[in-house]
Amino acid sequence: MTTLVSTTAEPPHEGFDPALLQQLLDGKYAALRDQIRAVQCRPEFAPVLGLSRDAYRVQVMEWARAVAAAGLSVPGFPAEYGGQGDPGANVAAFETLGHGDLSLLIKFGVQFGLWGGAVQHLGTKLHHDTYLRAIGTLELPGSFAMTESGHGSNVQQLRTTATYDPQTQEFVIDTPDEGAQKDYIGNAAVHGQMAAVFAQLIVAGEGHGVHALVVPLRNKKGKLHPGVQIEDDGQKLGLNGVDNGKIRFDHVRVPREALLNRYGDVSPEGVYSSPIENPNKRFFTMLGTLVQGRVCVGAAAVSAAKNALTIAVRYGNRRHQFGPPDQPEVPILDYRSHQRRLLPLLARTYALHFAQQELAARFDAVFTGRDTAERSRRELEALAAGMKAQTTWHAMETIQTARECCGGAGYIAANRLGELRNDMDVFTTFEGDNTVLTLLCARALLTGYAHEVGDLNPAGLVTFVAAQAVETVVERLHARQIVQVIADAVPSRDEKRDLLERAYQQELFEWREGHIVAAVATRFRRRLSRGDDAFEVFQAVADHAAAAARAYVDNFALEAFSGAVEACEDPQVRAVLGRLCDLYALSSIEADKGFFQEHGRLAPSRTKQVTREVNELCAELRKDAGLLVDAFGIPDAVLAAPIGLPTVTQTT
Amino acid sequence: MTTLVSTTAEPPHEGFDPALLQQLLDGKYAALRDQIRAVQCRPEFAPVLGLSRDAYRVQVMEWARAVAAAGLSVPGFPAEYGGQGDPGANVAAFETLGHGDLSLLIKFGVQFGLWGGAVQHLGTKLHHDTYLRAIGTLELPGSFAMTESGHGSNVQQLRTTATYDPQTQEFVIDTPDEGAQKDYIGNAAVHGQMAAVFAQLIVAGEGHGVHALVVPLRNKKGKLHPGVQIEDDGQKLGLNGVDNGKIRFDHVRVPREALLNRYGDVSPEGVYSSPIENPNKRFFTMLGTLVQGRVCVGAAAVSAAKNALTIAVRYGNRRHQFGPPDQPEVPILDYRSHQRRLLPLLARTYALHFAQQELAARFDAVFTGRDTAERSRRELEALAAGMKAQTTWHAMETIQTARECCGGAGYIAANRLGELRNDMDVFTTFEGDNTVLTLLCARALLTGYAHEVGDLNPAGLVTFVAAQAVETVVERLHARQIVQVIADAVPSRDEKRDLLERAYQQELFEWREGHIVAAVATRFRRRLSRGDDAFEVFQAVADHAAAAARAYVDNFALEAFSGAVEACEDPQVRAVLGRLCDLYALSSIEADKGFFQEHGRLAPSRTKQVTREVNELCAELRKDAGLLVDAFGIPDAVLAAPIGLPTVTQTT
Repeated sequence: MTTLVSTTAEPPHEGFDPALLQQLLDGKYAALRDQIRAVQCRPEFAPVLGLSRDAYRVQVMEWARAVAAAGLSVPGFPAEYGGQGDPGANVAAFETLGHGDLSLLIKFGVQFGLWGGAVQHLGTKLHHDTYLRAIGTLELPGSFAMTESGHGSNVQQLRTTATYDPQTQEFVIDTPDEGAQKDYIGNAAVHGQMAAVFAQLIVAGEGHGVHALVVPLRNKKGKLHPGVQIEDDGQKLGLNGVDNGKIRFDHVRVPREALLNRYGDVSPEGVYSSPIENPNKRFFTMLGTLVQGRVCVGAAAVSAAKNALTIAVRYGNRRHQFGPPDQPEVPILDYRSHQRRLLPLLARTYALHFAQQELAARFDAVFTGRDTAERSRRELEALAAGMKAQTTWHAMETIQTARECCGGAGYIAANRLGELRNDMDVFTTFEGDNTVLTLLCARALLTGYAHEVGDLNPAGLVTFVAAQAVETVVERLHARQIVQVIADAVPSRDEKRDLLERAYQQELFEWREGHIVAAVATRFRRRLSRGDDAFEVFQAVADHAAAAARAYVDNFALEAFSGAVEACEDPQVRAVLGRLCDLYALSSIEADKGFFQEHGRLAPSRTKQVTREVNELCAELRKDAGLLVDAFGIPDAVLAAPIGLPTVTQTT
Repeated sequence: MTTLVSTTAEPPHEGFDPALLQQLLDGKYAALRDQIRAVQCRPEFAPVLGLSRDAYRVQVMEWARAVAAAGLSVPGFPAEYGGQGDPGANVAAFETLGHGDLSLLIKFGVQFGLWGGAVQHLGTKLHHDTYLRAIGTLELPGSFAMTESGHGSNVQQLRTTATYDPQTQEFVIDTPDEGAQKDYIGNAAVHGQMAAVFAQLIVAGEGHGVHALVVPLRNKKGKLHPGVQIEDDGQKLGLNGVDNGKIRFDHVRVPREALLNRYGDVSPEGVYSSPIENPNKRFFTMLGTLVQGRVCVGAAAVSAAKNALTIAVRYGNRRHQFGPPDQPEVPILDYRSHQRRLLPLLARTYALHFAQQELAARFDAVFTGRDTAERSRRELEALAAGMKAQTTWHAMETIQTARECCGGAGYIAANRLGELRNDMDVFTTFEGDNTVLTLLCARALLTGYAHEVGDLNPAGLVTFVAAQAVETVVERLHARQIVQVIADAVPSRDEKRDLLERAYQQELFEWREGHIVAAVATRFRRRLSRGDDAFEVFQAVADHAAAAARAYVDNFALEAFSGAVEACEDPQVRAVLGRLCDLYALSSIEADKGFFQEHGRLAPSRTKQVTREVNELCAELRKDAGLLVDAFGIPDAVLAAPIGLPTVTQTT
């Protein structure tokens, strides 16, 4: 007997040092990432197939406690509460955990990011002193109770109420109907002892919009608090190590101090006050403090895509099938059809990696207060929304492609691609539905990041855009983009430029973004000026607006990738990264060649040239593919997929 | 308490009678479909969530026995063996079962289609008399043991051997190494008592290529046959009600009559003979008799897509979110962004439905002997390969989109979209990997359906195409396509035609197919004439060839859909089907607008018009979406997804 899968090594090549590239990818948080990898590699963190749901939930809770015990849970908390005051480290920790069990990741995110984040960012000193340390140690497990059965995306219309009773100086938390029950709430079914509950705040008969309050769910022994009803959400497609549940409140009373009162408070006598007068602005400011969730989800999605590619590329290097006549079969990654499936996804994964690092750096700058500009905060929110949608969709596409590229072996549960996909799937929906987030990002682009347009309610956006001359909207774009837009329909001037010239690629990406944003704004104005109904106008342009957000994220990722290439000091690593960046840019242009031709920017002969260039880049990068996934630095014990290990041990 | 999900009915509209449309979809096998639906609706067929793997396998076996007991298992077998001599009915039965539990579907397919089909089509009267009746009743459960760990797609290179021993007049079945073990074999881990084993036939030291033999696996009590080793494949991403396993043979002896000898026989003295002299032709003829598997898999994939759309469209009609200012929220299917996600998939599902009916009709004509033309058989094989790839990819895309369109509710296991996706996933890989099948289909297009080019080995194809003048290859295309190809780059003549004119849409589809096929053939010749290595030439054009196969299937589906519209007698049904066919045609053109511009067929102003038309068709068809999914005729008990039921019952 020989081996199950042939062990022919990857074809020899000169290559580069993947350790150097890993250093570059790990960046400033390399030490933290190594600490987390060390925890993940402990024997007790090895994945267990076929656990029952109950046992899996217990296991995940134990893992989460181990991460907390290692001091890795809340680097973003202030030092006085057990953290390091380093919000960027939170993202890096989440990103690294994203290579491992995703139920643990989400348990971690719910406890330390959402529950902890709500207390940290919406609460004040009393709440911090009372809760933060116990949250960071997992002594006080909690939930983030925002979504309701009837309202996910439309948070402003939540129906849970928190009514102030000045007699007792308490809030009464109530679920008026079944659509208003909190739903899909992590940590609710079993472990959560408290929750940050988002509810319509009602004071003296007047509604002040959605605010968050700290509400008890159950005591340490698991007994439900009076008036609280909890129902298990049961089996899900994935993430079954997380105990999601529905919560109903029947006139549950909490003290006045339960209100997380940083952006809105109620005096003992029952007078509402807020540092932010405009209710819409207040609402978006409160939600904005929670942007960490989206930044983290995007980071973990890129990690999941890396796992899938690591497995599929190694399998593609090792699996032989067909070949020239009377010669040995060749590795399937030698086939252009196989390269075409995996390598553009690998390039885009690198692009999104660097984009995520830039996003996390901006998040860190805003949340440490190094960048206090209001515009920076709003750009951050728009970018986080757009990135979250693109990274999670990219992860799903990558995992599915990887699964198919591994054939029957990919369908075996032990190889973990199915678990990865099932766990990742809901990332496209939670922390904001991807389609809604894409429109949220588009709105920010169209309105120059103004908050005043209210909720995602389309009419608000329409009214806002209508109120401004389109020229003003367009002015907000980079001046350079406008020049490109105006210079539209002159493709011939491009014909002589080298497709591999980075500046030219960047021009094409910027032009695309600017063109779509300007076109959408123009459509808005035209239709409104002829008296069309505002809601219908929004309907009509929504798809076009979504394209603007996608172009914006693509452009941002190219800038980030290109910046990383330029900053890279090792000549060999820099060379391979440069080619990969070319592949990202050109495969993105190829996928959108209909647009580039439609708007006269690329001639047919030119787009055909792009296709040829993508083919050549795939052929050229094929030899580096193995090292490029090695550089992701995913420990074998964490990847834990037999077909994805760097070498296959003899089975006999 | 009111309801969990609001029960607002679908917006009122004039509509059409979905029962009439269902009649049209059910077609000539309506009665058989109703019989199967009746079985599926029995209480004991209700899906059970959370069964252990062992219990699920037992359950599925019981279901399969119930289907057999109802006389619905083998309508394709000759009447003397319990069937009706109706191969088309086999496909219709499989298609209808595709709406229910997919483990049952695959158990059914393995037993009656693959195991039964191998005995029926590769065996002769002795085998039929001995086995067919017991296969049809499930008295004799069996496996189809083709795939090996080391060889899935490249069947000609299988390594299991069947060596004839003239001394004992037996074949010795042997697994020479671990890569040669049979793998992912359904019915192998638990239930299979025999298997059709595909092995290299060796007679007097000479290899005669892959043949199938009937080999015992275990007795009725489950005791393994001497020399047979079986290992459970364990947990899979889905289809866990099917007992897949690995099989190793250690010099297992079977009598000479175990050879399924329709296409190759060995005399007692050890002389090989075959009615087909050319070994390649023989191999492909044998495989060709198994085409039913691919026809059936495609049919079931369309059924699965229908389930997903039924759930998502009904949810989209019922789920309200956002709305005009100070007005009630609107159903999410009112949003163009939501329509754009679901309605083109609905249109394509209908197109593929009608394409499958045409494919099944051709399959029936060939296998009942009504159509005996060699070319028909080969076209059938090419079409089945191309259709299988496109339908299964379409099903995966549709299910994933439906899952996301149902948000958190779609992520709850009880709503079954995850199970549907996990079960359907491997359809893209089994019965031929989709990428390989796409190339197989392309090869047939390029070579005018010649079998002589040997296996999928690229060099064979290259040599074949090289041996012919490209003009000859091109001549095989429809004459009309060639005219279009020659008339390339004259987009202006199209500008005045109505995008909704069916004949014009068909011209565009035919032109696309013809253009790509001709272009690939030309590239072949050009590169070979300059002396490039044959293997590399294949590498270089593989992606382009795959595009030819996709265009071919798209065109075939448009013809089928358009034919169904023309044949429809009810004016209201005909009107809505016509619009849906327009949406299929134009959304397909829109998705490929880069190609149409690149090759000068559609001007930019024209492709923009296509996009506007797709938007309008979506808006128009939105009101019919509910009835269009009702017409799929999936019983509530079979759909079994609470969010996908036509109305939601009050929960309090």
